[in-house]
Amino acid sequence: MQVGIIGLGRMGGNMAARLRDTGHEVLGYSRTSPDRDVTSVEELVEKLASPRVVWLMLPAGDPTRQALRRLSGLLSPGDVIVEGGNSRFSDDTEHARMLAEHGIGYVDCGVSGGVWGRENGYAVMCGGEDEHVRKVRPLLQSLAPEEDGLCHAGPVGAGHYAKMVHNGIEYGMMQSLAEGYELLEASEYVPDVPKVLASWRHGTVVRSWLLDLQVRALEADPELAALSGRVDDSGEGRWTVEEAVRLAVSAPAMTAALFARFASRKPDAAQLKALAAMRQQFGGHAVHAATAATDGKG
Amino acid sequence: MQVGIIGLGRMGGNMAARLRDTGHEVLGYSRTSPDRDVTSVEELVEKLASPRVVWLMLPAGDPTRQALRRLSGLLSPGDVIVEGGNSRFSDDTEHARMLAEHGIGYVDCGVSGGVWGRENGYAVMCGGEDEHVRKVRPLLQSLAPEEDGLCHAGPVGAGHYAKMVHNGIEYGMMQSLAEGYELLEASEYVPDVPKVLASWRHGTVVRSWLLDLQVRALEADPELAALSGRVDDSGEGRWTVEEAVRLAVSAPAMTAALFARFASRKPDAAQLKALAAMRQQFGGHAVHAATAATDGKG
Amino acid sequence: MQVGIIGLGRMGGNMAARLRDTGHEVLGYSRTSPDRDVTSVEELVEKLASPRVVWLMLPAGDPTRQALRRLSGLLSPGDVIVEGGNSRFSDDTEHARMLAEHGIGYVDCGVSGGVWGRENGYAVMCGGEDEHVRKVRPLLQSLAPEEDGLCHAGPVGAGHYAKMVHNGIEYGMMQSLAEGYELLEASEYVPDVPKVLASWRHGTVVRSWLLDLQVRALEADPELAALSGRVDDSGEGRWTVEEAVRLAVSAPAMTAALFARFASRKPDAAQLKALAAMRQQFGGHAVHAATAATDGKG
Amino acid sequence: MQVGIIGLGRMGGNMAARLRDTGHEVLGYSRTSPDRDVTSVEELVEKLASPRVVWLMLPAGDPTRQALRRLSGLLSPGDVIVEGGNSRFSDDTEHARMLAEHGIGYVDCGVSGGVWGRENGYAVMCGGEDEHVRKVRPLLQSLAPEEDGLCHAGPVGAGHYAKMVHNGIEYGMMQSLAEGYELLEASEYVPDVPKVLASWRHGTVVRSWLLDLQVRALEADPELAALSGRVDDSGEGRWTVEEAVRLAVSAPAMTAALFARFASRKPDAAQLKALAAMRQQFGGHAVHAATAATDGKG
Repeated sequence: MQVGIIGLGRMGGNMAARLRDTGHEVLGYSRTSPDRDVTSVEELVEKLASPRVVWLMLPAGDPTRQALRRLSGLLSPGDVIVEGGNSRFSDDTEHARMLAEHGIGYVDCGVSGGVWGRENGYAVMCGGEDEHVRKVRPLLQSLAPEEDGLCHAGPVGAGHYAKMVHNGIEYGMMQSLAEGYELLEASEYVPDVPKVLASWRHGTVVRSWLLDLQVRALEADPELAALSGRVDDSGEGRWTVEEAVRLAVSAPAMTAALFARFASRKPDAAQLKALAAMRQQFGGHAVHAATAATDGKG
Repeated sequence: MQVGIIGLGRMGGNMAARLRDTGHEVLGYSRTSPDRDVTSVEELVEKLASPRVVWLMLPAGDPTRQALRRLSGLLSPGDVIVEGGNSRFSDDTEHARMLAEHGIGYVDCGVSGGVWGRENGYAVMCGGEDEHVRKVRPLLQSLAPEEDGLCHAGPVGAGHYAKMVHNGIEYGMMQSLAEGYELLEASEYVPDVPKVLASWRHGTVVRSWLLDLQVRALEADPELAALSGRVDDSGEGRWTVEEAVRLAVSAPAMTAALFARFASRKPDAAQLKALAAMRQQFGGHAVHAATAATDGKG
Repeated sequence: MQVGIIGLGRMGGNMAARLRDTGHEVLGYSRTSPDRDVTSVEELVEKLASPRVVWLMLPAGDPTRQALRRLSGLLSPGDVIVEGGNSRFSDDTEHARMLAEHGIGYVDCGVSGGVWGRENGYAVMCGGEDEHVRKVRPLLQSLAPEEDGLCHAGPVGAGHYAKMVHNGIEYGMMQSLAEGYELLEASEYVPDVPKVLASWRHGTVVRSWLLDLQVRALEADPELAALSGRVDDSGEGRWTVEEAVRLAVSAPAMTAALFARFASRKPDAAQLKALAAMRQQFGGHAVHAATAATDGKG
Repeated sequence: MQVGIIGLGRMGGNMAARLRDTGHEVLGYSRTSPDRDVTSVEELVEKLASPRVVWLMLPAGDPTRQALRRLSGLLSPGDVIVEGGNSRFSDDTEHARMLAEHGIGYVDCGVSGGVWGRENGYAVMCGGEDEHVRKVRPLLQSLAPEEDGLCHAGPVGAGHYAKMVHNGIEYGMMQSLAEGYELLEASEYVPDVPKVLASWRHGTVVRSWLLDLQVRALEADPELAALSGRVDDSGEGRWTVEEAVRLAVSAPAMTAALFARFASRKPDAAQLKALAAMRQQFGGHAVHAATAATDGKG
């Protein structure tokens, strides 16, 4: 079927390619990409046959909101917009309400699979009314892996909600693997850590795609020497913790994973200085002076 | 090759079966199992041809220690014992030293794969000197899955060490999945949680064997109604945290997983009563009376 | 000075009493309290001399919002409202903006001290413009302990913000004390735990008001037998974690405290059943059946 | 009464001074201190009148063990040794057994109060048999603050056990205060954080000695600019977590505090590199290159 995609970044570009590969007609627009098929949103809307399907792959927040507002004035009743970016599930409700006033359908769609999705397929979780999801189903099915991996998770917001929880789990799993890796590295018992991890890919309880990726990374750089210890986080990890708080669900592993990333970016965090200060006060404990104060010998 | 197995419980019995299926000659002994091939350890040792290989699958701690001591008096120089149970890695060093005095080799072997291992193969992590591991390698290879999954992790202790860390990661991954499951269950966005989890098996970042098992459990009992919330833990989970402490490795996700299990078994834990007591003291906060003490007014 | 207080619950009533004791003229209103001095908000406003000061002590959220809206139509330019309840700091900005349109000042005020505050004084953290805080300062000073404990923390919102963080710290400190208490109770080394805690009140690093309260609770009920292990939480504890997430501050101790309370109220939480389910699937581990399925012996 | 003190470091020296100030006769020995009264352990033992009391203030582990062994050959039946250092509670049992063979009593004694103890008194928690504790009680009482703070916590080991749990609580409380401090520092609401903390000393729920110390530290250095974020830990914090694991007590706040210190000392920890590596693998996420590897392009 025909689809217009707005946003041709790493994810959008790869998805456009997978959709084309599976027989769909894709019209891509992006402000800057040389791969775009049209040079304006207006042209995109004009070239799509009714009822139109427009797929957004823009940064969450303002860029997505602005595009939705603009499209609400260009599209016609019966058209459907798929928000395939990383909107917070709570924003989806507002988006859908605003578009419904124009008779335009809205499907929120969480997509997982990273740079591997183009080849292996993307896991696709969507939310929205049945009639809207039905209209875009051929696209969703083509994005998903052959063995399936497509889920209409519930009403508007459910797609991004499911994706958010997925990412929360991902944070916790990654943190678990990372802690285990450091334990092995720190121990005097295991001389060749990459070898142990590689052997875990078969038969173990922890076999998983994340383990495969960790093994792959170690094959390329056995001591991960090229990487620093500063780890970024994204909206979904934070929103999962916010939801845990809202719903009174204890989520210590996910939260530990998020906090470990926060701490990784603040080697001289105020809280650590506060600990050092209290220790110095009560015990006369030797503490580490700020780097600027250290002399030649450190 | 020929091997004597002591301990024919769920794990030992299945492993014996897999070894037989792959062409090895297995002599099994257990104090109580009707499947045993010999009726005493002495008979087992007598029937094995030199150099002998004896594989222990007994509970860790005293049962394993006693069996090792007894075997040290029965076996001959050049024989090898494989400790395939769940000994703490730190015990392996003592075991090996004691056996070395008798000229007997020692290989510690962590085995993962649960009840599925008989069919799919077990992940096998072993520790010990090269010459001892070489002697038992055909057994290890037959236990492992066809695609491999066998790892000589290092010197004596390394096998159980690797297995211990594996289990620590397993705890953290399980906790992450469990938290995500509860979030989805608690949310108003996702009406059919098992459907969402099932869809995650393909294309997602969290695809893993543990997810597969969780999906399988939900297929059999969509609300997990048959299970209580009391979750046991085993030695490896605890030892991993002890190691994190010893090695000064921050391991919040693994530890959160262990503590969640501890807490699950103590609904009226002293620490919770202490919290309630302090709240009552400072704020006159309404607190929940102990169940036995509740009357009509609650 | 003269002040009208709306809300005469446990906190409001005690604060009114302390203000009267320190020489202020207090007019109290509450829909239901027999101690009220006036029978309507209109009467309260009428009886106060200009420029008026009205102190709100209502539940956060709708009740406070409604009262503010109503007062905005009754008060005059130059009057000041103190929001002494537990509003989220982020609501204060809206409150202040709305009242500013009517020329009415707004001071947000976090109050700590529980039922002991009437006698010992309340810690008072306030936020707002200097001119508004100045007008109500005599009241704040009378509420605070003699040794001080009054803080103009910053612009509108800062009072509730400081109080929120205070409560987050309180959660973490309580959890720490509670964990220590359970460790002592669980250990075979310490036969008389209340005696140990009592001795800590002097000379230790952990001496604190919360420890004093814990000791007091144990004096009244040495095994805390009258209390259940279900512990409630309040808005401030949750908001602190939300703020930690928003500001990318690692806050594991505070969050652990909040999650421990969440978990205390869900003995058969979905996440625990999920753990049990996975264990059963991979290992054939014995798991605990749901209570309903247990027979007489449990 | 008369006492010999071995070890005149910061703690031992201050305690000797407080004991002298309160009327006791103190003979101090240290290998290196110019303040020592005797030049050998033999001389110390010789100069003490029977029955002797010797107080050890040496580093835990080997130094303490060696001193005990040496003293066991020099002292006489009826003498008592107080181990006032930081021995692990589990070592105390061995120490006491060894000394009992020589008829020498053993009291383990946890001492809290830091550099402030000389003036304010030390909290003193001791373990041992009644008859041994009775013999040294005058010393304990003089060390403790006037308002008390002395506790015979139980049999041998109980003193160090109580002190260990005390320190675990201390870790959790410090972490809670430190997290709150960083939240206030990070927030746009509170311009003068030291002022807020100072106001909390009176009337709040979090008033405590640790808060006082934090306020004191901020008075001296309002931005804690002289301190780095590397925070050391000591045996007691680790042992508390080990005990939580042994006794199956959930202790997330104490453990979070310990792990935060571990992480503070490893800005490029292996676990963080592992997280970065997995992110790079699955998502093509931009990651931070190791510092050494960064060039012009960053």
